[in-house]
Amino acid sequence: MGFTYGIIGLGIMGGSIAKALKSNVVKDDQMIFALDKNSASLEDAKKQGIINKAFLPEQTEEFLSACDFVFICLYPHVTVSFLKEHKNHFKNKAIITDISGVKNLYLENYDSLCPSGADFILGHPMAGGEKEGFSNSNGSYFINHNYIIIEDKSIKTPEGISQEEHKRNLEFFKELVQKMGFSKITVTDCNTHDNKIGFTSQLCHVVASAMVESAEDKEITSFGGGSFEDLTRIAMINSPLWTELFLSNKEKLLAHISNFKNQITKIETLIKEDKKEELEDLLNDVRRKRIDMQK
Amino acid sequence: MGFTYGIIGLGIMGGSIAKALKSNVVKDDQMIFALDKNSASLEDAKKQGIINKAFLPEQTEEFLSACDFVFICLYPHVTVSFLKEHKNHFKNKAIITDISGVKNLYLENYDSLCPSGADFILGHPMAGGEKEGFSNSNGSYFINHNYIIIEDKSIKTPEGISQEEHKRNLEFFKELVQKMGFSKITVTDCNTHDNKIGFTSQLCHVVASAMVESAEDKEITSFGGGSFEDLTRIAMINSPLWTELFLSNKEKLLAHISNFKNQITKIETLIKEDKKEELEDLLNDVRRKRIDMQK
Repeated sequence: MGFTYGIIGLGIMGGSIAKALKSNVVKDDQMIFALDKNSASLEDAKKQGIINKAFLPEQTEEFLSACDFVFICLYPHVTVSFLKEHKNHFKNKAIITDISGVKNLYLENYDSLCPSGADFILGHPMAGGEKEGFSNSNGSYFINHNYIIIEDKSIKTPEGISQEEHKRNLEFFKELVQKMGFSKITVTDCNTHDNKIGFTSQLCHVVASAMVESAEDKEITSFGGGSFEDLTRIAMINSPLWTELFLSNKEKLLAHISNFKNQITKIETLIKEDKKEELEDLLNDVRRKRIDMQK
Repeated sequence: MGFTYGIIGLGIMGGSIAKALKSNVVKDDQMIFALDKNSASLEDAKKQGIINKAFLPEQTEEFLSACDFVFICLYPHVTVSFLKEHKNHFKNKAIITDISGVKNLYLENYDSLCPSGADFILGHPMAGGEKEGFSNSNGSYFINHNYIIIEDKSIKTPEGISQEEHKRNLEFFKELVQKMGFSKITVTDCNTHDNKIGFTSQLCHVVASAMVESAEDKEITSFGGGSFEDLTRIAMINSPLWTELFLSNKEKLLAHISNFKNQITKIETLIKEDKKEELEDLLNDVRRKRIDMQK
């Protein structure tokens, strides 16, 4: 059957999604369309045979009316604005998803952005790095990564989509991201997502940034054995995006920072007071916990 | 010329040193001897043709009198005790080095441990990981890693070694570790070493341990995109060794922890007060600094 995937925003994430779809998903009668304000990225993607058709922002309605599955790969607040503006422009029965690292801002705005006649399933492909832009995208980017799909009772199935259709769409979505390379799919609600991601992703970026800021000089890597390098690689951060993520998830992130600071202080105190045995016990516990996390 | 390398302690570091020497350094008329209390590791190393002769602790004097270059691969305080006990048992004109991650404890004990008739050059191969023991050692372990060699005016050239001999020994040492795979050699004093390593290595281990301790549950990795995993890999820590390193370098490490906590608090405050622009500027600065560190 003819089926069209649409990508909005052809950066590293949108580009990698397009490439993974092209390599592992689309059949001869299926197509990939892309919408971006950057015509050079669109041109590249067309020349490389990744996308079938390119659209500029002024062609958004034409683009949306043609797409059966839409990945919105924009910054979180831009995604919200996009949905508000275009909630009535999606193709009937289309599936729409996002890639945002924070989800509660959808709940806050739900009535004004819920698409009509289309199914709205939030998602979060857990992959990232210091690189940006379509030129750095690649179709193997997602192999062995996690995907989080949101099912939240506060997100009602949009009007015109039955529960049975929604269930089928959800299964379709899961199979799709597996074909794209993702190995583990977790279904959870917005609140759990933001809490866990506030820890595994945002707190880690705060910590790595603080480590880099506390370095006395940049010659530090002559004295590195890999620890500092591994710990701070993620500090090569996309600053507007991460500022947005930190502030959008402020409450949960601040709780994680506070908890982390308490743990640092606990270790600091053991060192200060020469508590050899307690320190050894704590490090043993840490080692065991971290090994368990790999299982 | 006949020349014998001696390894004391055939764990992951001593074992990897022995293998790197065997693969890249020793010629037909040169030998590698090893001393360990674990006879199984010694047996393995002999069977694999890595070492020419194995010695148990009761044969220490015989071992030391035969070695021209000795790598002491023991925990820091055990290295100090070993030197105190055996300062008069080294071969005349031998070169002796250690692998400890903390150096000031040698200065504190200098008179009681300075070997007689042998040259004493402290060193620190900057490589490590969560694995332990001879079975995990490998001869490629050091490729592209840093080596720090100590030249400190408080460490006098031992009696019986002339300045010219010491200079030659230093050059010999540098060439040796380059052949073993190390790509960058930095010569510095004990105080600078301990201060820098307190930051790049010890503080990183404290931070990674605090991150693991602050995780609410071990299922966290379903929500990981690689950041948490990279940041906390080093938390699979050898707890007795790292307790010793933290406590031996207490003063400098505590200063680094305090500075790091201030940086965390700075970011925390910007988030708390919704300072979007300042936060973006800070993250931009972090990104630029970290990219500079790679050059």
